[in-house]
Amino acid sequence: MNLILDIIDISTPVILLNDIDARQIGVLEGDRVTITRIKSKHTIAAPVSITKTLTSQGTATVSLGTNNALDGEKGDEIEIRAASRPSSIAFIRKKMDGGKFTREETAAIISDMSSNVLSPSEITAYITAAYINGLDMDEVEFLTREMVASGEQITFSKKPVVDKHSIGGVPGNKITLLVVPIIASAGLLIPKTSSRAITGAGGTADLMEALAPVAFSASEIKTMTEKAGGVIVWGGSTNIAPADDMIVTYEYPLKIDARGQMLASIMAKKLAVGSDTCVIDIPIGPGTKIPDEAEGRILANELITLGNRLGIRVECAVTFGGSPIGRNIGVNLEVSEALSILEGKRGANSLVQKSVAIAGIALEMTGKSGSGTGSDAAYDQIKKGKALKKMLDIIEIQGGDPKVKSTDFPVGEHTFVVPAASDGYVVSIKNQALISIARTAGSPVDHGAGLHLHKKPGEYVKRGEPLLTIYAERGWRLTRAVEEARTTYPVLVEGMLLERISSNR
Amino acid sequence: MNLILDIIDISTPVILLNDIDARQIGVLEGDRVTITRIKSKHTIAAPVSITKTLTSQGTATVSLGTNNALDGEKGDEIEIRAASRPSSIAFIRKKMDGGKFTREETAAIISDMSSNVLSPSEITAYITAAYINGLDMDEVEFLTREMVASGEQITFSKKPVVDKHSIGGVPGNKITLLVVPIIASAGLLIPKTSSRAITGAGGTADLMEALAPVAFSASEIKTMTEKAGGVIVWGGSTNIAPADDMIVTYEYPLKIDARGQMLASIMAKKLAVGSDTCVIDIPIGPGTKIPDEAEGRILANELITLGNRLGIRVECAVTFGGSPIGRNIGVNLEVSEALSILEGKRGANSLVQKSVAIAGIALEMTGKSGSGTGSDAAYDQIKKGKALKKMLDIIEIQGGDPKVKSTDFPVGEHTFVVPAASDGYVVSIKNQALISIARTAGSPVDHGAGLHLHKKPGEYVKRGEPLLTIYAERGWRLTRAVEEARTTYPVLVEGMLLERISSNR
Repeated sequence: MNLILDIIDISTPVILLNDIDARQIGVLEGDRVTITRIKSKHTIAAPVSITKTLTSQGTATVSLGTNNALDGEKGDEIEIRAASRPSSIAFIRKKMDGGKFTREETAAIISDMSSNVLSPSEITAYITAAYINGLDMDEVEFLTREMVASGEQITFSKKPVVDKHSIGGVPGNKITLLVVPIIASAGLLIPKTSSRAITGAGGTADLMEALAPVAFSASEIKTMTEKAGGVIVWGGSTNIAPADDMIVTYEYPLKIDARGQMLASIMAKKLAVGSDTCVIDIPIGPGTKIPDEAEGRILANELITLGNRLGIRVECAVTFGGSPIGRNIGVNLEVSEALSILEGKRGANSLVQKSVAIAGIALEMTGKSGSGTGSDAAYDQIKKGKALKKMLDIIEIQGGDPKVKSTDFPVGEHTFVVPAASDGYVVSIKNQALISIARTAGSPVDHGAGLHLHKKPGEYVKRGEPLLTIYAERGWRLTRAVEEARTTYPVLVEGMLLERISSNR
Repeated sequence: MNLILDIIDISTPVILLNDIDARQIGVLEGDRVTITRIKSKHTIAAPVSITKTLTSQGTATVSLGTNNALDGEKGDEIEIRAASRPSSIAFIRKKMDGGKFTREETAAIISDMSSNVLSPSEITAYITAAYINGLDMDEVEFLTREMVASGEQITFSKKPVVDKHSIGGVPGNKITLLVVPIIASAGLLIPKTSSRAITGAGGTADLMEALAPVAFSASEIKTMTEKAGGVIVWGGSTNIAPADDMIVTYEYPLKIDARGQMLASIMAKKLAVGSDTCVIDIPIGPGTKIPDEAEGRILANELITLGNRLGIRVECAVTFGGSPIGRNIGVNLEVSEALSILEGKRGANSLVQKSVAIAGIALEMTGKSGSGTGSDAAYDQIKKGKALKKMLDIIEIQGGDPKVKSTDFPVGEHTFVVPAASDGYVVSIKNQALISIARTAGSPVDHGAGLHLHKKPGEYVKRGEPLLTIYAERGWRLTRAVEEARTTYPVLVEGMLLERISSNR
């Protein structure tokens, strides 16, 4: 049937038909059609939405997102036909019915997802079914390889190529800013892609962006890594394993983080950048993704098994995730804290120790250090100033200022000090409450927003001494963050009165 | 944060924000926001989509579908804030993790679904999870009651109120056009809502529409039923259990028909129209929804159990669904076949017997006939012309022509007779192939399109005698339907040569 094209200004894939035309064509909501632009013979296939009122008879309305491939103009004559359903839907049904994906089925799903042949609802059905019925290690391997195949890949002629990854959930985990320059300064390649904060107060990409641009193509990442030894870029801006980013976006509203998907997601980014050696940090404890050590060991084994199948040597470090890494949370506060350690200043022990431990494993795995000496060797790279020099090289090659100092990162002018309400030892810190306060104060959008922890668990505090300083760039954000801190008690001092209830308030 | 409103012309719920504004507000794709129109204080809540290019900073773009509740105008000032996720998403997660819904959780999901608080992807996640992990009878009852509560309900002062339902999959199943007037002519109330063809060649609502209008409100259905004893209307046009229609729409692209959902779907429509007595026809055989008798009995027991919980007496008839009911498929052909039987003409035995059997059960259940005599009593209503008179009353009260005759329904002028390729008995008929040919010929949109079966299983045919006539209103549709019939062999004669393969063709 021939119709006239109309185009609307949204990116979501949409093809709208009038219900009378839809009946003539023989399609219902969600059925597939092909649209061919008569003039150019360009053809696209996608699911239709049907409307009684918003598209008149004789017109097909498509979104800009859908029109990209059709390359049509408003008023073009188009031919529209009912099309058959892609086989990937049958494969999704198979998983809904408890089946196991083959490599070819996985490939079809990832390909149809990437090219918008599957609708958002169908992608959600895939994610839901894979979450409920699970993916075994074969299926996870297929998924990883197909996610890699969905985008660009990097191959280095020099080996080894190191990578690191931290499973999320711990605030202040800025160790990548230390680990990457340590490893690169030891003469190894480390093309590190990282993410922005999704639910946290600042992802590594958010932090690095305060120092240099982070959006690069795969070939730029390769060239820069070959020159500087390492980079710290934003994975979301590259075309590396884009299908993974898509799946993560669809998982987000449901707050699911299916194990098979998580394994594939981590390893796809490593495989795609050509890494052969990988250290994975698994923080455990309340508020992290992994509640206890037993679960941490299971995850570690799964990552090692998947790595073996993909030709990547993986070692995992189960780490303490019960309180923040370092004392600062928020973009400028964290960048400053990390740089000051590279500059040789005295800094938070938790940050230094964790960074050199993770970097040290990579040094040992690659033979740069002997067994048991990696951590000391990594610390040496800091003490000798080599890690700082390398970090400044990396900043420079990414287009940042190589003269930057840890003192160049201003905090927000609106501040509030939360004092201890009683004498005592700090007994616990609520990671999620701290992250939430930092976000309320403006992190990660406002670079000067965040918080500084004066006391961490085990430290003694006197009544009235500062526990926590909150920084914000805008007064109203500070007000809200302070209110939140007053009700969530993020830092608990033993013997602290949590609530006073009286009849006459 | 305050923005300016823009409105786009589509019905799908959409709120689009520029990614910089979204980061300021602190929301990601799929997160919830509230939008308040400053002028009127109208507020809505819905999930956002985020774009880099299509909505400029400072503007929020909403669809007409979303703006309905906000009642805003282009250029209005609005306040937009991050909102928390509705609790229904946590309940969907619970089902994904194998949990069981409470009544309150079911109510929250159905309510948020109906009011567009849940996104299409979240609704699909609900449907997928309920399909995979199933619903037990408690959950099915909750779902049925909440679907009823989602729309209007009818209460009759007179009892009993009868209903009938046929599980789908059999072509030519026009028995409702006979069953409803038989039951109403016996003095019973039967407010029958029916559906249009989804994947078939003509639903009961499509057939009835050839006789009279079928779109009515709940109160019109009540008034008409009280006057005429019965109606045959389109359930999709009423506000009766609208949440059910919504779920069915979301199931369609995935081609799932989850058992719990199907039970609730059938019984919600019956409960909402005030029915207390219900006969359900369960056709079994290849191409139907229920493959064999054992499965038919399980379904029957589930329907009876659910009916008991809802206060509806249910009886089920497991029927033969292996070949079409009657000999005609397609709107005018089926209407004509049904009317001619009501007019006392000799007609297809399968259609007459099945109709009086189903109507007879209702007559026995309501005490209008003694045990074992319902079927004969039902047939008597046809023979005495009472069913025809009642059908004309029903047509008239719905606004159709009460003088209509079975000969008033023209077939398409383009016809093709498929002859038998050899002598022999008809051994099988492929229901799905017949439906597909009828749809290709134009059913149900072209009322004159369809097909007539000259021979059914067990009948003898000589080579060259007609097996099947295909009717179409448009030549190109006939050509395609004939091509399809040549390759799918919908009517098989024993000893028929299916394919000739030679090297020199």
